[in-house]
Amino acid sequence: MLIGTGTDVHAYESGRECWVAGLRWDGVDGLAGHSDGDVAAHAMCDALLSAAGLGDLGANFGTGRPEWAGASGITLLRETARLVRAAGFEIGNVAVQIIGVAPKVGKRRAEAEAVLREAIGGIVRVSGTTTDGLGFTGRGEGLAATSVALIYPVQKEA
Amino acid sequence: MLIGTGTDVHAYESGRECWVAGLRWDGVDGLAGHSDGDVAAHAMCDALLSAAGLGDLGANFGTGRPEWAGASGITLLRETARLVRAAGFEIGNVAVQIIGVAPKVGKRRAEAEAVLREAIGGIVRVSGTTTDGLGFTGRGEGLAATSVALIYPVQKEA
Amino acid sequence: MLIGTGTDVHAYESGRECWVAGLRWDGVDGLAGHSDGDVAAHAMCDALLSAAGLGDLGANFGTGRPEWAGASGITLLRETARLVRAAGFEIGNVAVQIIGVAPKVGKRRAEAEAVLREAIGGIVRVSGTTTDGLGFTGRGEGLAATSVALIYPVQKEA
Ligand SMILES: [Zn+2]
Ligand SMILES: [Zn+2]
Ligand SMILES: [Zn+2]
Repeated sequence: MLIGTGTDVHAYESGRECWVAGLRWDGVDGLAGHSDGDVAAHAMCDALLSAAGLGDLGANFGTGRPEWAGASGITLLRETARLVRAAGFEIGNVAVQIIGVAPKVGKRRAEAEAVLREAIGGIVRVSGTTTDGLGFTGRGEGLAATSVALIYPVQKEA
Repeated sequence: MLIGTGTDVHAYESGRECWVAGLRWDGVDGLAGHSDGDVAAHAMCDALLSAAGLGDLGANFGTGRPEWAGASGITLLRETARLVRAAGFEIGNVAVQIIGVAPKVGKRRAEAEAVLREAIGGIVRVSGTTTDGLGFTGRGEGLAATSVALIYPVQKEA
Repeated sequence: MLIGTGTDVHAYESGRECWVAGLRWDGVDGLAGHSDGDVAAHAMCDALLSAAGLGDLGANFGTGRPEWAGASGITLLRETARLVRAAGFEIGNVAVQIIGVAPKVGKRRAEAEAVLREAIGGIVRVSGTTTDGLGFTGRGEGLAATSVALIYPVQKEA
């Protein structure tokens, strides 16, 4: 088995739709960036790419790959899972923790896990926490996510 | 095997007892919160719950579950391990790193690992680091912990 | 299998050579500290030591062990891998993500992975991300790295 890790951060930007963990969150400020700013999906992509030795989001979907500009977190996650499988791996599971004041992912955890699981075709765990008013996540300046992934090489058929 | 991840943060609050990694630390400011603020135990709970697909601390021991209000980190960890086993898993190991200026966990690492291992009935690794004066952990405003857990499904007997 | 985790942070210090992930980065401010401040190598050391139950960097290479003062990140990583094997483990893989504005590790990822892999004698994954201008990594005050390691006990020969 191989392990990978990924972290992502985006600043809140009022007036944008909020997309986190593949879901739209009404009444919550959105996240800044060229993309939808889905920190959970992005951290999961980075964890999976890391485990498979495929680099990171920037290398695969960054400014050198304009065809992915503006793609949703779920779209990037689906493509990431395809790349991981094309490299000869199957996904064990991916766990992601969303760190910050909003959205409160616990309220829609099953829904988020279902959407993310469908995107990667594998087991996903979603959780959330806050940082007790400390740091940029505590002050509500931005949202962070941290993720770990476990993958395993697939035996080639004879 | 399944992997999970958890992070926790609490602000220091002078005048409280300091409980971290299941131990009381004399001469160190305590941590704020409804509970004992044991960031190490809390991060481990979240990592285990995440791996097992059981959500997070908030979902299992939060305001909707007043019977756990004020419970110690060790109590929450013991109950978390019970929930993980009730869901059909055994614990491989849990690693937790404590990030901040105090307490210095290295001085009592074996003691902390023994207390935490007894609580979960599985292998625990405890380590510590600082952040070179940077961020809220560096300025001594709060203490953070980050944890990863590895669990595996138990074969049901016939 | 056993899992471990490690995080490291160093502040930038202009006028020093920058060493990150075992490589020298020209045109980038160096990192403060008694050592070369290689956050990637240090986080990997902590992840490996954590997985093996050997404590952390401070316990193994800290002020109580002056023979390691000023050692490079690669030197510490090589010794860490030796300690892990001496404790009866083999290294599955280690993943490390470098978090901050500079250096841009993506440009030399293959080179970094080769140097780090040679140091530990095992699979290494290197990735990078930024924090959208937030926190000490976003403001360019310091560089962080987070790492996870997977190791397994070696069967002793009869
Ligand atoms: Zn992102
Ligand atoms: Zn807590
Ligand atoms: Zn360091």
